[in-house]
Amino acid sequence: MAMWGGRFDAAPTELVAKMGESVSYDHRLYAHDIRGSIAHAKMLAKQGIITADDAHQIEHGLLGIKSQIDAGAFTFDERLEDIHMNIEARLTENIGSAGAKLHSARSRNDQIATDSRLYLRDELDTIKRLVRGLQIELIKIAREHTDTILPGFTHLQHAQPIVLGHYMLAYTEMFDRDHSRLEDCQKRFNYLPLGSGALAGSTLPIDREFVCKELEFLGCCRNSMDATADRDYMIELLSSLSIIMMHLSRMSEDLVFWMSQEAGWIELGDAFCTGSSLMPQKKNPDMCELTRGKTGRVYGDLMALLSIMKSLPLCYNRDMQEDKEPVFDAVDTVKLVLSVYAPMIASMKVNKDRMYEAASDPALMATDLAEWLVKNNVPFRSAHHRVGALVGYCKKAGKRLDEVTLEEMQACVPEANEECLALWKPESSVALRESFGGTAPNQVRTQIAYWMEQDFVKQLLK
Amino acid sequence: MAMWGGRFDAAPTELVAKMGESVSYDHRLYAHDIRGSIAHAKMLAKQGIITADDAHQIEHGLLGIKSQIDAGAFTFDERLEDIHMNIEARLTENIGSAGAKLHSARSRNDQIATDSRLYLRDELDTIKRLVRGLQIELIKIAREHTDTILPGFTHLQHAQPIVLGHYMLAYTEMFDRDHSRLEDCQKRFNYLPLGSGALAGSTLPIDREFVCKELEFLGCCRNSMDATADRDYMIELLSSLSIIMMHLSRMSEDLVFWMSQEAGWIELGDAFCTGSSLMPQKKNPDMCELTRGKTGRVYGDLMALLSIMKSLPLCYNRDMQEDKEPVFDAVDTVKLVLSVYAPMIASMKVNKDRMYEAASDPALMATDLAEWLVKNNVPFRSAHHRVGALVGYCKKAGKRLDEVTLEEMQACVPEANEECLALWKPESSVALRESFGGTAPNQVRTQIAYWMEQDFVKQLLK
Amino acid sequence: MAMWGGRFDAAPTELVAKMGESVSYDHRLYAHDIRGSIAHAKMLAKQGIITADDAHQIEHGLLGIKSQIDAGAFTFDERLEDIHMNIEARLTENIGSAGAKLHSARSRNDQIATDSRLYLRDELDTIKRLVRGLQIELIKIAREHTDTILPGFTHLQHAQPIVLGHYMLAYTEMFDRDHSRLEDCQKRFNYLPLGSGALAGSTLPIDREFVCKELEFLGCCRNSMDATADRDYMIELLSSLSIIMMHLSRMSEDLVFWMSQEAGWIELGDAFCTGSSLMPQKKNPDMCELTRGKTGRVYGDLMALLSIMKSLPLCYNRDMQEDKEPVFDAVDTVKLVLSVYAPMIASMKVNKDRMYEAASDPALMATDLAEWLVKNNVPFRSAHHRVGALVGYCKKAGKRLDEVTLEEMQACVPEANEECLALWKPESSVALRESFGGTAPNQVRTQIAYWMEQDFVKQLLK
Amino acid sequence: MAMWGGRFDAAPTELVAKMGESVSYDHRLYAHDIRGSIAHAKMLAKQGIITADDAHQIEHGLLGIKSQIDAGAFTFDERLEDIHMNIEARLTENIGSAGAKLHSARSRNDQIATDSRLYLRDELDTIKRLVRGLQIELIKIAREHTDTILPGFTHLQHAQPIVLGHYMLAYTEMFDRDHSRLEDCQKRFNYLPLGSGALAGSTLPIDREFVCKELEFLGCCRNSMDATADRDYMIELLSSLSIIMMHLSRMSEDLVFWMSQEAGWIELGDAFCTGSSLMPQKKNPDMCELTRGKTGRVYGDLMALLSIMKSLPLCYNRDMQEDKEPVFDAVDTVKLVLSVYAPMIASMKVNKDRMYEAASDPALMATDLAEWLVKNNVPFRSAHHRVGALVGYCKKAGKRLDEVTLEEMQACVPEANEECLALWKPESSVALRESFGGTAPNQVRTQIAYWMEQDFVKQLLK
Repeated sequence: MAMWGGRFDAAPTELVAKMGESVSYDHRLYAHDIRGSIAHAKMLAKQGIITADDAHQIEHGLLGIKSQIDAGAFTFDERLEDIHMNIEARLTENIGSAGAKLHSARSRNDQIATDSRLYLRDELDTIKRLVRGLQIELIKIAREHTDTILPGFTHLQHAQPIVLGHYMLAYTEMFDRDHSRLEDCQKRFNYLPLGSGALAGSTLPIDREFVCKELEFLGCCRNSMDATADRDYMIELLSSLSIIMMHLSRMSEDLVFWMSQEAGWIELGDAFCTGSSLMPQKKNPDMCELTRGKTGRVYGDLMALLSIMKSLPLCYNRDMQEDKEPVFDAVDTVKLVLSVYAPMIASMKVNKDRMYEAASDPALMATDLAEWLVKNNVPFRSAHHRVGALVGYCKKAGKRLDEVTLEEMQACVPEANEECLALWKPESSVALRESFGGTAPNQVRTQIAYWMEQDFVKQLLK
Repeated sequence: MAMWGGRFDAAPTELVAKMGESVSYDHRLYAHDIRGSIAHAKMLAKQGIITADDAHQIEHGLLGIKSQIDAGAFTFDERLEDIHMNIEARLTENIGSAGAKLHSARSRNDQIATDSRLYLRDELDTIKRLVRGLQIELIKIAREHTDTILPGFTHLQHAQPIVLGHYMLAYTEMFDRDHSRLEDCQKRFNYLPLGSGALAGSTLPIDREFVCKELEFLGCCRNSMDATADRDYMIELLSSLSIIMMHLSRMSEDLVFWMSQEAGWIELGDAFCTGSSLMPQKKNPDMCELTRGKTGRVYGDLMALLSIMKSLPLCYNRDMQEDKEPVFDAVDTVKLVLSVYAPMIASMKVNKDRMYEAASDPALMATDLAEWLVKNNVPFRSAHHRVGALVGYCKKAGKRLDEVTLEEMQACVPEANEECLALWKPESSVALRESFGGTAPNQVRTQIAYWMEQDFVKQLLK
Repeated sequence: MAMWGGRFDAAPTELVAKMGESVSYDHRLYAHDIRGSIAHAKMLAKQGIITADDAHQIEHGLLGIKSQIDAGAFTFDERLEDIHMNIEARLTENIGSAGAKLHSARSRNDQIATDSRLYLRDELDTIKRLVRGLQIELIKIAREHTDTILPGFTHLQHAQPIVLGHYMLAYTEMFDRDHSRLEDCQKRFNYLPLGSGALAGSTLPIDREFVCKELEFLGCCRNSMDATADRDYMIELLSSLSIIMMHLSRMSEDLVFWMSQEAGWIELGDAFCTGSSLMPQKKNPDMCELTRGKTGRVYGDLMALLSIMKSLPLCYNRDMQEDKEPVFDAVDTVKLVLSVYAPMIASMKVNKDRMYEAASDPALMATDLAEWLVKNNVPFRSAHHRVGALVGYCKKAGKRLDEVTLEEMQACVPEANEECLALWKPESSVALRESFGGTAPNQVRTQIAYWMEQDFVKQLLK
Repeated sequence: MAMWGGRFDAAPTELVAKMGESVSYDHRLYAHDIRGSIAHAKMLAKQGIITADDAHQIEHGLLGIKSQIDAGAFTFDERLEDIHMNIEARLTENIGSAGAKLHSARSRNDQIATDSRLYLRDELDTIKRLVRGLQIELIKIAREHTDTILPGFTHLQHAQPIVLGHYMLAYTEMFDRDHSRLEDCQKRFNYLPLGSGALAGSTLPIDREFVCKELEFLGCCRNSMDATADRDYMIELLSSLSIIMMHLSRMSEDLVFWMSQEAGWIELGDAFCTGSSLMPQKKNPDMCELTRGKTGRVYGDLMALLSIMKSLPLCYNRDMQEDKEPVFDAVDTVKLVLSVYAPMIASMKVNKDRMYEAASDPALMATDLAEWLVKNNVPFRSAHHRVGALVGYCKKAGKRLDEVTLEEMQACVPEANEECLALWKPESSVALRESFGGTAPNQVRTQIAYWMEQDFVKQLLK
């Protein structure tokens, strides 16, 4: 019994096959593989490399296989390694020698590069749509909560009051950049590798431009070595997905905090929470937590692919077979999380009273007093210093800022007058922040109006 | 139609279930889950929390379920979320109220921590055995090749001749440290979490020591919050596995180079190579390349878990459900790669002649001349300088070092004498490196003798 | 003007030098480099490779250089690339030909491996001491707070009451494993590389065992290729440091939450917090936040080194020069953070009243009622179900669990009796969790007693 | 003596300051900080928040400080934490109360976001220029080597002959996408954060549009929370830099291989290589190796920042101070490597003869025979099979493909005729690959012509 056998019952050959095969995960590319093959066959016929009849048989045969796979009636064979060989072998089995001609003037190296671009182009469309869907939910919440006041934080310490709509628009911005990153990525890789052969092009008289049009690419890859060897588009994609997850992880962190007993500002819908197998009282914000956790997973996918591609010689190396699983995993993860996230935030119940109460601590308005002083010609640093002294006085005296008399205030802030006593209301505080991009309800409404003018909002939000 | 729906047909609830379930991957823990539950039930009975009859029914019921799962006859239900609930629900279905008592004094938080430690303890045994198996193959090759000379490299430039056995023992050392890292990791986590409850222990009169002995742990975790909240052992494991893969990736890099047409020093067995779908002449060292690629994958798993665990509040958070897939993936990957690697290197054919020829370039012996000078009282820096000058002279004169006459040599190296002309043979060069740990065949045989004395070698290598 | 010049004024040669030099960061190894060189010189003399007088001059000269560097009076020259060459060149400048003999029978490849192990051995001693110091502070807080009750969380939702001492002991456990990981790592790399030469050993009659004893290593590396080419010990170290930071990041996350206005349970000392340049009222827990941030940094260091070492051919490659900065950065970061962390938690003021108040929500005691039912022969699942119903009733009725009458309770939980009404006090709840490792004050005191018996505590805590 | 003191002599306060300060690295932002402050002051005056005279004094004062820093005559004070406070404090010291007014209506949160965008905008210009410079060198080599034939590889096995110019154009493509990624990133972050205050905007009547124009941003950030809290642009940048390094690491891997004694195809200029401290004959391709190593470093920077930003609550958290060092490190690294890389490849001497000799192995032309058969109506799979049989025959017979007679060939490949015997020349092989993007010299010249038409090439290459 071989040493390496360990607890495996499989003989080396089986294990080698297992290590080498990819059809167990790349079978999801079948529709794109078939689409590419049909375009390729048409081109071969057009160029006289195969006959029109061959091309016709191939197309017909491939569509039949596609139907079978669609219907779940196709058994993939791991001994045939990958999706390409599974389909080609079955095709030849079904239609004979025409099938054996399909692989003329191509290699699996340019074929997989083509398949994965076609596939990711579609997936990116889906993800972009899901990002738009999430933005719509955010904008809807923003519209409802232009006047809902809660504490804004820095360092998880109360900083200044904000309105909830403003918070939601912050994420609308982030996801908008995410959307544009996906678009840039998609545009950059939307070029046809097919026709690059194994690495050096083909000696057969192919017409790549024809295939390019059939498959709706923006153009042909200009260098066969680059086309078959590089995977930068996958890394760019994983990076863009990592940033989306980063954004979602941050929102999740806030939602978890808001739903804690300590804050008690929101409650997510029951459908998005679970209980405990032990503690009968629990309602846990699981989807938020899983979102954070899955962020680490997508980061791992990115790091995996970066490591895989580092220092590989040109052109194709088998290491690159390992590109697919991280990409598939990240795509699936982001689609799932976005799909759950939009209805989850739509399910959120807001406890405006507790939010307002928390935002009513006059310490949150300390900046307003400093800025009032600036308006009254006190240099900012002095203003900041004086208000700091007042805060210190209050702490010692065990008073809140809104409990000091004008006299007490003037002891620290000589320039203070009656107006200052009116600064402690959070609603006045937010209303004052009317600068472009600020949290004033009017300003937030202006920004909502901006979003309402965007095409995707017009289309998706009635 | 909801915005977030995208191309998903599933309603939110289904997607939420999909995002929340873990049974699709944690079902592999079933045997360990059942083993833990049986020990728990015995303890509950011993402590009078349930009756002896309850415990008996539970044990019997669980063993029945185990048989069913072993036989592939158990259908897991994703609505029951995880392996724990799938088993408990079926148990109660089968045996009634005794089943409903099993979860007394435990939570899924201490249960999963127990399951995963039991599981990883076993997997580590397997991986340790596979590491030993690989070391055995390396030692076998080392024994056959104590006198097979090839160029040793630094910077992928010829440096000094080495013997192939020496190279193999370098990796034997690395994998020995890998083995000891796995042992340390295993020893450190081999403590029982069960009895920690959700986070704070139990109000029921449990006997953790009893369960500890039943499950063959070294002791009980001393703090219930730590026991349920920490995953450092998984990170330590992933790190140890990453280092194993790093070592394998480096050996693979060398094997790929050695098998290139440029070196032509080895040929790996056909079973471990594949051809090309396009190029009829190709024989590619795929298993080496996949090993390198899978290294990136394991790195990604490590980075995923590190990211997941960063900045989580105590105790259990649902983010931690994402710990399992990276750990399972890394464990599976390392087992598979090690299982293929050992027979692969055993299949390696060595072309001693080409190796020797490459090592015969006298430039590889330049250090020997410098060290000869040191033995003849030339300060090393001067010796290095003089030999450098000789190398320069040769380059200009278009001669190899072994083609210069003594007179030419003395022009650069005045101390040189007839002895120096005998330094250019690689076999003398390696023979001279007799210092402990050096590449001299005698020294390599000494080191092989050391390994032959190790218990695992005595056991595994006849 | 060269294209690549960009905005650089430096000519390529300067840039090449800049890219190649390492003395700007490896100069910190000077004391260990000198220590290693002195041991090497003594050995060379003992073996007759150099004279006793040479060795004496070398030792004297090196100690002089060390004094100069200690005093900040040594100017490093980047043209001499690294610390080794800076010291050797100066030595030869100062003492002449004896200096030129020092590099006999060694290479920078075995020299740097030796230096870095000596250096890290010392740094690990420091870090281990700092970990112990932090544990001491945790134990001190635990001793003061065996009866201080606060809510324990899972999913950042109130779960069950715990005592603060229990929380502190959870981290004591984690840092104890961290300490043992550092010890294992240190033990594993505490072997002497020197004498391995560039890769293949030396042709000179060296005595490695002698050097080993001089430098207090546990033994000699057994294979020269392994000794000069591998860096697994650095990766193991970075991984262990990453786990320490992960633990610190989690504690920081909790402290930040506890110090939020929403919780208000603690206040960290002013010395460990900062204010805002704009908002006069702010007191931010900066050191906690920076600790979390620096966790990412150490993770990055680990990922850098893993990537660097992947797929490198044997033996030394210049890529490996990039090993030092991540290791130095992680070592410095962890030392700094640990040094700040211990006094920071010592400065923590605990607001017991607010903690207790938060823990007094009877929902936290729901599990206790379920477990009371188990003690009274209700199967756990039924118990859990009944208490769940009671929680639901309370929610609907707008009552807390401690506000329901026995009759109301019995409507959901027929087995309930007067005893149950006494379950809602958090002090009784924690007291009941007396199982080994549980949060009961008595159990926490037992665990403190365990720690008080540990050597490091006896030494460091009076 | 405190436990945590360890070997540190510094008291906690000093260590806290050390952990908190950033001026030791963010001082590099001074010019951008000052530029931003001058624009801010002008706006404050325009809006009547400060007087015109104040603004004038501020501008004058800041320019004075800038001159001082430019001249290296400014001492930064770590007690003032960061570059902002160092400059503001000095300004107020120099000009009095006008200085104390500068921080009106801004916070360090929007200030650092503005500084870092201004800074990175400039650095991206530099990096983009360096990428262009490298592309120019590649194109120059491509022009010289449209007919230089060498083996093309897949799996580091000889695949098909290529021309060296084709290889160089592959990288020209990759760096072109890199350039476009940098442009997209720059465009996406080129928006003004200033005026966002700490998180919620300002209560003072500021004019952000004015500042936007002064600082040449494309527009104002539309949401103050997003503007101060997000760092996605830095992650996008680090990702784009990681991809550049990945590309460079791959080219380096090839160059190292090409320069090995086994290939012997190129020699890099002496200025870019180093020797060995021990082995007199060595010439090592250090810059290539360091480039690979530094790739890991940049990956680490990316992973650090991703980890730092994960799960941070809105808005600013001090964790984010850790954003700067990874970004600065990656920017510096990429600038340095690109600056060295362009002249390094320009220094490369090509050994055309050895390249040609290696490419002359007729096995490299096996595909051509298969494709010749396709042209002669043999289905590709059969063609592939027949040529495979011929390759097998040759191996057994110990002959090269160009040594078989037509009769021998026909035994395996019945359709073969005289034409086939002419397929074994690498120059005919490459000439046949005329498909768009293929390696035929004519096609490569077509692609060079494409590049010569690009604006940057017209500008930079005469």
